[in-house]
Amino acid sequence: MELKRQLYEALAPEARRSGLSMTNACIVGLVILSFLFLALETEPVLQAVPGWKQAFDIFNITVVVIFALEYVARVWCAGIDPQYRGLGGRLRYMAKFYSIADLLAFLPELVLMAMGHGSSLLVLRVLRLARLMKIARFIPAFGALGAAVRRASSLLLTSLALAVTLVYVAAVLLYFVEGVGGEQQEAFASIPRAIWWSVATLTTVGYGDVYPITPLGRFCAGIIAIAGIGVVALPAGVFASAFSDELRERELARLREELEQTRADTAAEKMDD
Amino acid sequence: MELKRQLYEALAPEARRSGLSMTNACIVGLVILSFLFLALETEPVLQAVPGWKQAFDIFNITVVVIFALEYVARVWCAGIDPQYRGLGGRLRYMAKFYSIADLLAFLPELVLMAMGHGSSLLVLRVLRLARLMKIARFIPAFGALGAAVRRASSLLLTSLALAVTLVYVAAVLLYFVEGVGGEQQEAFASIPRAIWWSVATLTTVGYGDVYPITPLGRFCAGIIAIAGIGVVALPAGVFASAFSDELRERELARLREELEQTRADTAAEKMDD
Amino acid sequence: MELKRQLYEALAPEARRSGLSMTNACIVGLVILSFLFLALETEPVLQAVPGWKQAFDIFNITVVVIFALEYVARVWCAGIDPQYRGLGGRLRYMAKFYSIADLLAFLPELVLMAMGHGSSLLVLRVLRLARLMKIARFIPAFGALGAAVRRASSLLLTSLALAVTLVYVAAVLLYFVEGVGGEQQEAFASIPRAIWWSVATLTTVGYGDVYPITPLGRFCAGIIAIAGIGVVALPAGVFASAFSDELRERELARLREELEQTRADTAAEKMDD
Amino acid sequence: MELKRQLYEALAPEARRSGLSMTNACIVGLVILSFLFLALETEPVLQAVPGWKQAFDIFNITVVVIFALEYVARVWCAGIDPQYRGLGGRLRYMAKFYSIADLLAFLPELVLMAMGHGSSLLVLRVLRLARLMKIARFIPAFGALGAAVRRASSLLLTSLALAVTLVYVAAVLLYFVEGVGGEQQEAFASIPRAIWWSVATLTTVGYGDVYPITPLGRFCAGIIAIAGIGVVALPAGVFASAFSDELRERELARLREELEQTRADTAAEKMDD
Repeated sequence: MELKRQLYEALAPEARRSGLSMTNACIVGLVILSFLFLALETEPVLQAVPGWKQAFDIFNITVVVIFALEYVARVWCAGIDPQYRGLGGRLRYMAKFYSIADLLAFLPELVLMAMGHGSSLLVLRVLRLARLMKIARFIPAFGALGAAVRRASSLLLTSLALAVTLVYVAAVLLYFVEGVGGEQQEAFASIPRAIWWSVATLTTVGYGDVYPITPLGRFCAGIIAIAGIGVVALPAGVFASAFSDELRERELARLREELEQTRADTAAEKMDD
Repeated sequence: MELKRQLYEALAPEARRSGLSMTNACIVGLVILSFLFLALETEPVLQAVPGWKQAFDIFNITVVVIFALEYVARVWCAGIDPQYRGLGGRLRYMAKFYSIADLLAFLPELVLMAMGHGSSLLVLRVLRLARLMKIARFIPAFGALGAAVRRASSLLLTSLALAVTLVYVAAVLLYFVEGVGGEQQEAFASIPRAIWWSVATLTTVGYGDVYPITPLGRFCAGIIAIAGIGVVALPAGVFASAFSDELRERELARLREELEQTRADTAAEKMDD
Repeated sequence: MELKRQLYEALAPEARRSGLSMTNACIVGLVILSFLFLALETEPVLQAVPGWKQAFDIFNITVVVIFALEYVARVWCAGIDPQYRGLGGRLRYMAKFYSIADLLAFLPELVLMAMGHGSSLLVLRVLRLARLMKIARFIPAFGALGAAVRRASSLLLTSLALAVTLVYVAAVLLYFVEGVGGEQQEAFASIPRAIWWSVATLTTVGYGDVYPITPLGRFCAGIIAIAGIGVVALPAGVFASAFSDELRERELARLREELEQTRADTAAEKMDD
Repeated sequence: MELKRQLYEALAPEARRSGLSMTNACIVGLVILSFLFLALETEPVLQAVPGWKQAFDIFNITVVVIFALEYVARVWCAGIDPQYRGLGGRLRYMAKFYSIADLLAFLPELVLMAMGHGSSLLVLRVLRLARLMKIARFIPAFGALGAAVRRASSLLLTSLALAVTLVYVAAVLLYFVEGVGGEQQEAFASIPRAIWWSVATLTTVGYGDVYPITPLGRFCAGIIAIAGIGVVALPAGVFASAFSDELRERELARLREELEQTRADTAAEKMDD
C-alpha cells in the first residue's frame, strides 16, 4: 500500500499542485530522446556507421520496456483515486484518452518485436508520434491548443476561407497570364500548379522554383504580393494570438488559485492559534 | 402556395435568423466543388486520362442545370417577400446584384452549350469566378471585406502610398548601384526590372531569381531590407487588422441581437401566462 | 489682383481646409506620371522602339515647362499671404524647403536643356527624385513620417542596435562553422560575406544564393532563424506601428478640428439670428 | 586626487544621471570600429591588398593598448566609490562581470602579442566578441534583454515547445511523403534533412535549395505553410513584444525619476530663497 501510494505520487499529475515529479520529468525526457533517435535513425549516413543500428535497437527496446512498466504501474496505482477503484475502475481508467496513448506508445512495437520483426518497420515509426500524447498530458500548453482553436473558431474559419479564396484567385490570374498567355511556363500550365506558386508567394516562403517571367505576370504578382500577404498570414496570426491569450489567462488563473490556496492556508493556521 | 413557401424557406437567406438551410449548404458545396473541378480541368496530366474529360463535361452540365433550376426557383418564390410581389417585383429582384451573379453563374455556359461549343472555352472559365458571388451571399465574412476596407480606407491609402514609394525608391537605388554601375546585371538593367527585385525583397518573398551581387549593392539591399520590411507589410497588416476587428464586431452584434430576441421571447411567454 | 487671388486659392495648400484643389491634384498626377516615365525611360526594350525616345523627350520638356510656370506662379501669388509680401517676403518664400524642392524639380533639367544636352543625363534622373518633395507637401502622411520617427526614436534606435548585433553575431557564428570549418564555402569565406547570408535569413527574404550546407551549419542556422526573426523584424515593426499611431492621431485631430469649426459656424449663425 | 576624480567622472557610468561621457562614447565607438575591422580583416579580397594587413595590425595593437590603459584607469579610480575603496575593494571591483569583460577585451591578445604570435589567431577573433560586453554596460537596452526574457519566460518556453513540435511533425510528414514515397528526393531522405526544409519553410525564409516536388508533397507543404507560419513566428514575436514593453517601461521609469529629481531640485531652490 505504501509503494502504491508512492508510485501514485510519482506518476499521477493530479497528485501535485504544479510542476513535474522526478519520474514524470524522466518520462518526458525519454519521449523527447526517443523523438531525437527516431529522427537520427532515418539518416542514411548514420545507418552506414557500424554499431549504430545495434545501439538504436537497444535504445528502442529499453524505451519500449520502460513504457510498458510505466503503463502497468499507472494502471495499478490508479486505484488510489476513488473513481478508479476496483476492476471496473481500472477498465474505466484504461479507456481514458491518455491511457490509450500510453498503450499505443509501446504495445505495437512490443508485439512486433515479440514476432521477431525488429523495430525498423515504417508503420511503427508513424505510431511513435503517439508518444507526443504522453508529453501533452504534462505540458498544460498542449491542452491550451484546443481551447485556443475553440475560442477563435469562427474568426479562424472566416480568415481561413478568405486566405484560401485569395490563394485560389491569385492562382487563376497567374494561370491565365503566365500559363495560357505569355511564355506558357510549365509551372503555370494548370491552376493546381499555379496554386503552388500562389501559396509559396502569399506565405512569403518564395522557394524560387516557380516565379512569373513575363512583365505582365510580374506586375500582377507584385500587386498580389503587396496586397495579399497580410490576408494569408491572418489565420495563423489569429490562432497565434488566441493561443497566447489562452496561455496568459491560464497562468493568471493558476496564480490566482495559488494565491487563494495560500490565503486559505494562512487563515486556517490563524484559526488553529 | 405551400411549395412556394417551402422553397422560400429553403432558398432565401433572410428566412433564417442564422446558419444555412440544407439546400443552401448544398449550393455552397456545389460551388466549391465546381472551383475544385475548374482547377483540375486545366491540368494536362489529368486531361490525358481517358474518360476524365467526359466526367468533367457531365459534371459541368449538371452544375449548370442545377444553377438554372435554382435561379428559376429563386425568382419564383421571391414573391413571398412583399417587396418582390408581382411581375414588377420579380424584375426588381432580378436586377439585384446577387441575382445577376446567379444568372452569370450559369447563363453564358448554358447558351454556349446550346450552340454546341462545349464548356472548354477560355472565357467561360473566367466567368465561372462569378460563382464566388453565389457563396459571398451566404458567408457574412465576404460582406465584412468591403466594410473593413471602408473602415480603414484613409489609413490603407496612406500606408499603400508609403509602401509604393519605398518600393520605387529602393528600385531606383539598386538600378543605379547594380544596373548602371557595378556588374551591370541584366536583372537591374532598368527601373521596372529593379522594381521586380524590390517587391520580391521588401515583401520578403525573395524568389532568388534576382539579387544584388556587388558588395555595395548587397550593403544597400541589406539596409533597405532591415529598414523597409515593416513598412511594405503595413498596408496588408492594416487591412488584416481592420478585417479582424470588423468580424469581431459583427459577431458581437449578432450575439447581442440573439440575446435580445431570446429576452423578448421569454418576456412574451411570461405575458401569455 | 483677381487672378493672383484665384491662383493663390488654386495653388497654396493653406488656402483650403482639407483636400486638394484641382490644380494641385493635376500637379500630383503629373509628378506620379513623371516617375512612371522615369522608370519606363530606362528600359532597354522600350528604348529600341522607334518614336519612343521622342515621346519621352516631349513629355519631359512639357513637364519641365509646366513646373517652371508653376514655380513662377507660386512665387508671384505667395504675396497674398501677408508674411511673404514684398520682395523680401518673396525671397523668404523662395528659401523655404518646399520652394527649393519646387526649384530643383525643374531648374537643373531646364539649364541642361538650354545648353542642348537633352534629358538623358544620369545625374538628372537622380535629381528628379526631388519631385517626391513636391508630392510630400500635399500628402499629410509624408509629414507624419518624420513625426513617427521622432515619437519612437529611442525605441527605434535600441531595437535597431539589437537587430544589427544579432545579424553580426549570427554572421560570425556561421563564418566559423561554414567558412573556416566545414565545407569552406566561398559564400561564407569572410564575415562581411556571411553578413549577406545573415541579413537575407533573419529578414526571411531568403534569396537562396547562399545557405549553409554542413549539418552543423544548418543546425545553427535553424536555431538562429527560429530565435532571431522577430528581433530583426522589431525596428521595422516599431516604426510601422508608430507611423500608424501617428496617422490615426492626426486624423482624429483633423476630425475634432472640423467638428469644432462646424460648431463655431453654427453658433455664429445662431448669433446672427 | 583631482585626476582620479576626473577620471572617475569620465569613465564610471554611475557618475552621470543619463547619457554617455565623451570618453565612454569614444570607447563605444572604438568597440564598434573594432568589430567593423574584425569583419573586414577576414575578407580574402582585402587581405590581398598590400599594406592592408599592416594597417590592421597597427589598429589592433592600438585598440589593445587603449583598452589596457582604460582597464588600469577604471580599476584605479574605482576607489572613488566607497564600496571599492582599498585593495580588497579593488579586488571586488575586478571580480565584477563587466570588469572581467574589460579584461577579456585586451588581455588574451596582449599576451599572445607579447609572445610574438601576431593577432591573426582564430581563437582571438572569437574572444573579441567579448568586447560586446563593453558596450552592453553603456546601452541600457542590452540590460533590458535579460529582463524581457524573464518577464515572458513561461510564454516563451511554451510557444517555443509548440514551434519545435510543429517543425518536427511537419518534417516527419514530408519525410514520408517526399523521402520514403514519391520521388525519393535526397533532400528528404531522412527526418533530420526534412527538418532543414521544415525550418526554412515555417520561418518563411525559403532558400529554395529544398522543396517538395510531388503533388501530394506540395499539397501537404501548402497546408503546413498556411496553418503553421504564425505558430513558428510566435516565440520570436513574444520575445520582441516583451522586449519592446520592457524598453517602454524603462523609459517611463527614467522620465518619472528625472521629473521627480527636477521637482526636488526646484523645491530645494525655493527653500533656499
